[in-house]
Amino acid sequence: MKVEDIIWKEGMSVKDLTDSLGNVGFQSVQLNNAKNAIVKMKKEGAKIFFTFTANMVTSGLRGLFAQTIKLGLADIIVTTVGSVEEDIMKAIGEKFDIGTFKADDVELYEKGENRVGNLFIRNESYYKFEDFTQEFLEKAYKKKRIWPVSELLKELGLELKDKNSILHQAAKNNVPVFCPGITDGAFGFHLFMFKEKHPDFIVEVVEDFKNILLSVSHDDKKGVICLGGGISKHHALFVCLLNGGLDYAVYLTTEHQTDGSMGGATTDEAKSWGKVKDDSDAATVIGDATITFPIIMMSVFEELKKEGII
Amino acid sequence: MKVEDIIWKEGMSVKDLTDSLGNVGFQSVQLNNAKNAIVKMKKEGAKIFFTFTANMVTSGLRGLFAQTIKLGLADIIVTTVGSVEEDIMKAIGEKFDIGTFKADDVELYEKGENRVGNLFIRNESYYKFEDFTQEFLEKAYKKKRIWPVSELLKELGLELKDKNSILHQAAKNNVPVFCPGITDGAFGFHLFMFKEKHPDFIVEVVEDFKNILLSVSHDDKKGVICLGGGISKHHALFVCLLNGGLDYAVYLTTEHQTDGSMGGATTDEAKSWGKVKDDSDAATVIGDATITFPIIMMSVFEELKKEGII
Amino acid sequence: MKVEDIIWKEGMSVKDLTDSLGNVGFQSVQLNNAKNAIVKMKKEGAKIFFTFTANMVTSGLRGLFAQTIKLGLADIIVTTVGSVEEDIMKAIGEKFDIGTFKADDVELYEKGENRVGNLFIRNESYYKFEDFTQEFLEKAYKKKRIWPVSELLKELGLELKDKNSILHQAAKNNVPVFCPGITDGAFGFHLFMFKEKHPDFIVEVVEDFKNILLSVSHDDKKGVICLGGGISKHHALFVCLLNGGLDYAVYLTTEHQTDGSMGGATTDEAKSWGKVKDDSDAATVIGDATITFPIIMMSVFEELKKEGII
Amino acid sequence: MKVEDIIWKEGMSVKDLTDSLGNVGFQSVQLNNAKNAIVKMKKEGAKIFFTFTANMVTSGLRGLFAQTIKLGLADIIVTTVGSVEEDIMKAIGEKFDIGTFKADDVELYEKGENRVGNLFIRNESYYKFEDFTQEFLEKAYKKKRIWPVSELLKELGLELKDKNSILHQAAKNNVPVFCPGITDGAFGFHLFMFKEKHPDFIVEVVEDFKNILLSVSHDDKKGVICLGGGISKHHALFVCLLNGGLDYAVYLTTEHQTDGSMGGATTDEAKSWGKVKDDSDAATVIGDATITFPIIMMSVFEELKKEGII
Repeated sequence: MKVEDIIWKEGMSVKDLTDSLGNVGFQSVQLNNAKNAIVKMKKEGAKIFFTFTANMVTSGLRGLFAQTIKLGLADIIVTTVGSVEEDIMKAIGEKFDIGTFKADDVELYEKGENRVGNLFIRNESYYKFEDFTQEFLEKAYKKKRIWPVSELLKELGLELKDKNSILHQAAKNNVPVFCPGITDGAFGFHLFMFKEKHPDFIVEVVEDFKNILLSVSHDDKKGVICLGGGISKHHALFVCLLNGGLDYAVYLTTEHQTDGSMGGATTDEAKSWGKVKDDSDAATVIGDATITFPIIMMSVFEELKKEGII
Repeated sequence: MKVEDIIWKEGMSVKDLTDSLGNVGFQSVQLNNAKNAIVKMKKEGAKIFFTFTANMVTSGLRGLFAQTIKLGLADIIVTTVGSVEEDIMKAIGEKFDIGTFKADDVELYEKGENRVGNLFIRNESYYKFEDFTQEFLEKAYKKKRIWPVSELLKELGLELKDKNSILHQAAKNNVPVFCPGITDGAFGFHLFMFKEKHPDFIVEVVEDFKNILLSVSHDDKKGVICLGGGISKHHALFVCLLNGGLDYAVYLTTEHQTDGSMGGATTDEAKSWGKVKDDSDAATVIGDATITFPIIMMSVFEELKKEGII
Repeated sequence: MKVEDIIWKEGMSVKDLTDSLGNVGFQSVQLNNAKNAIVKMKKEGAKIFFTFTANMVTSGLRGLFAQTIKLGLADIIVTTVGSVEEDIMKAIGEKFDIGTFKADDVELYEKGENRVGNLFIRNESYYKFEDFTQEFLEKAYKKKRIWPVSELLKELGLELKDKNSILHQAAKNNVPVFCPGITDGAFGFHLFMFKEKHPDFIVEVVEDFKNILLSVSHDDKKGVICLGGGISKHHALFVCLLNGGLDYAVYLTTEHQTDGSMGGATTDEAKSWGKVKDDSDAATVIGDATITFPIIMMSVFEELKKEGII
Repeated sequence: MKVEDIIWKEGMSVKDLTDSLGNVGFQSVQLNNAKNAIVKMKKEGAKIFFTFTANMVTSGLRGLFAQTIKLGLADIIVTTVGSVEEDIMKAIGEKFDIGTFKADDVELYEKGENRVGNLFIRNESYYKFEDFTQEFLEKAYKKKRIWPVSELLKELGLELKDKNSILHQAAKNNVPVFCPGITDGAFGFHLFMFKEKHPDFIVEVVEDFKNILLSVSHDDKKGVICLGGGISKHHALFVCLLNGGLDYAVYLTTEHQTDGSMGGATTDEAKSWGKVKDDSDAATVIGDATITFPIIMMSVFEELKKEGII
């Protein structure tokens, strides 16, 4: 393949851009490869694991995540509990602020604003989340005592009405949401508070491991789209490893392989584990997913729409 | 403070180096600040949370982590389940290999070697880990049916005899090890296998959230040493937030704040949340912890030893 | 400003995407800010310094750079000599290959291919460049003996006929190209070879500093678009500092401020120097410019076209 | 090679630390490899190119650079003009301040302080540098009219008396200092001012390319120690390429290969160019050089001292 000079033409679509980036070089080539891998995993009927970290849900990617589920590009979700919290806050009407990375953090604290990079979440959003959660847990407890995590999250999703909600679209489309670190955040705190009053209320994590393990089989084609690293990415890769490895893998990350971290681990490294098969379609794109994910996924949607697949 | 030119003198100790780095600039200044913050948290009797990701345990930092616990510089550990697995593998005699980042991953797979950056773990290490774990779970099950994670990990530590083992030193020194994502790895798989045979075996995560929450109080001075990001770092910070915030905070990371990730989140950002107090001693050092942690911690030990504190 | 959930709509243009990224968070917000700053610098008639590193010209961004000049969005160019070399190679018909970052470098060497990330340049391209350059220098030498760098580069641009050539468009549109490190590459080697035969041939760098210094005045509004760091970025900023500082500044970079490097230096840091004015419109976007620059610049073109400005 | 757990022992030296880092993993292994490569290049009598960016001279590494020259570990220096400026400022008694990355840049500007990461340079240092430089140029001009850059820098070094000065030690030890971008900074501005009065004063860059090209031969063993990227690194590598390629190469950098930049270019990539020979001893260490360089170089000195080589 040759490098081709990119040129602007009036009215260019996102899809046109992605197509031409395929001949530009460095990360732009990877971006186009990622687009192609996702198109292919959908066309070939792969079960798609979609993983992301909570800061992605703090950002405005949330709506696009919900749409990704709705349009059938995500069959299994793995994420952290922060995603659950912020999806709920937004679903019940809370709005987050855009500020700067250099904001005065002491001043923010005094104003009751909590910074995530250049985004701010107000304390009030947490208070409303608390009210919602305690009420929800009461209802769930009435139904049964022992809850595998993904069943609890589905129940939650059924409560939400927002079409831009990840949990709502997941519940509606029968896409399980796994959260192996369910206690690590405000939701965990509310589970603890609730359990103080109801000691027989049990959140089952080992049972939920069984659920995710059985959510695919060795015979399924399997693909993964991972935004960032951490427990979400690792969990999906590990489950796929136990099921014979991935046929398609797309990683979007800001981390590099040079520190041996999960976020920086490449699709090549995954081959040594059998997580990703040797002949799989795989691409790692280095860059902020708030930029790379929309370009890639919108181009995927455009292409699949044109072919009548979505 | 002025920049001072650094000069080599024959026989310089690690501590001499760190002292002089305090006047060099960029990350070297931060490194010296981190050293000072840790010395201070120990001297002032703070409860110290120590968090790290699993790749750090894959590396040879493990022995230094165990020593950090033994010498009283870690009161509460938070980590991911990969750390537990690899600590056990090493404790039962397995050795990992040092290779290169550019290794042929398909060839490694065929040889049964799994790559983590430039380190390789053989499949056999996982087989031995499996045998050990299933036997251990049988024993644990005989004692009781419901296990909060940290209690299970303490039980595990009591089984291990290796003085370089994190779990061993933690158990011996009554330092609890928390692992909010206990199912995310081979250990989780073995828990699932075991539970298939013993459905009444329950791993309690909400109960364990209570344990970590009560491991410190509002009145304690609190410090944190975080290597990398992810669920380990977030969990410690969140628990400290619920207990009134940190007085001391040291983050060693390769990530940057510009992507809004937990790994890149700075001690400044933490102030907006009340995770870190305004007037706390805090330092973020950007760099690979396999280099920065030994320099910092060895200098800390040297200084505390000289003062008769350890 | 509030975070807004981003949603795909069929047929979205690049400009639609950029607009919606303005409410997403993290680097996507910065990307939209960068677009706005560039639109503004054009509308307000600022003199625009455009700087980039040579690897950007190796990539397919070259055509977009030439178009940027042609459409009047760059008034002064600063770059390294590698950009000159590769612009010429492409202008005389050479094509570069797209490969992978993990290519076997010893094998590439044996095949006469030189790797730049995931792009390859063949030795033959350098041979053809050599022939062109020696012939060109003969012609230039006949005109005069002492050449300030930018005058030599203009002469070069007049020789090239490719509309996607940076030097061609610059010469045609009277946009000076400055290259403060003119000897650092194959072109420098050819200058040396030529000078061996013609010792009175002199390339003037101090005279060229005068040229760039006088290319703008204190009274001009001034803007800068910097891709990457190094001597190109520094040179433009320094010249603007001497002329009263910048009114607009956009930096696209993969580097971070934490190491004190020029590539990582932010628009905030530039304010301490008086390089960037306090009240200027400024944005730093962290990410690979092969992705960020096309999105930003194409959106700029679209907006300016719609308003009849270009 | 196996991963070995690292353990602190009282009174550990920097050299002890580096030795043990060789078995830790990730970048610590690379750090030890870098140390070994430098020791070897010295023992085998290689000509050593030493390159660094200006921010490294802003920091306190400057003294160690001068010592590296004095102890015979650098035979040819390549750097940017900022290094020259700040070496002079410090040599004539100026001191830089250590602040923070989050300093208020507008306030700094008003106080006449210029920020480089977390270091500040006062305007007064620039004024004193100006006085020194104009006086120096008068003297140089009296000697001759046409100055290749490295000859001018040697003349400068002879004027300075500070033993921690890079230029002083270089001049004293007959180590040439090359600066292919000599006009890119305050020194360039002063050259321009001086030339306004003395139009026949010429700074020769092409002649200086000849000087660096002839500073080594094909038959010499050649090594390189590069801190950061940019024109300094590229220049040394290019000259070595023209002389048959490097036998030893050590890169210390914060950049990654994924963007195709010079700073991120690895020693592997250099093999495709013939810059680094296939069988050379080569190591790339990712990390802030204000930390990695002192550890590596002090360990090198310690080892060579013990063997009576320095």
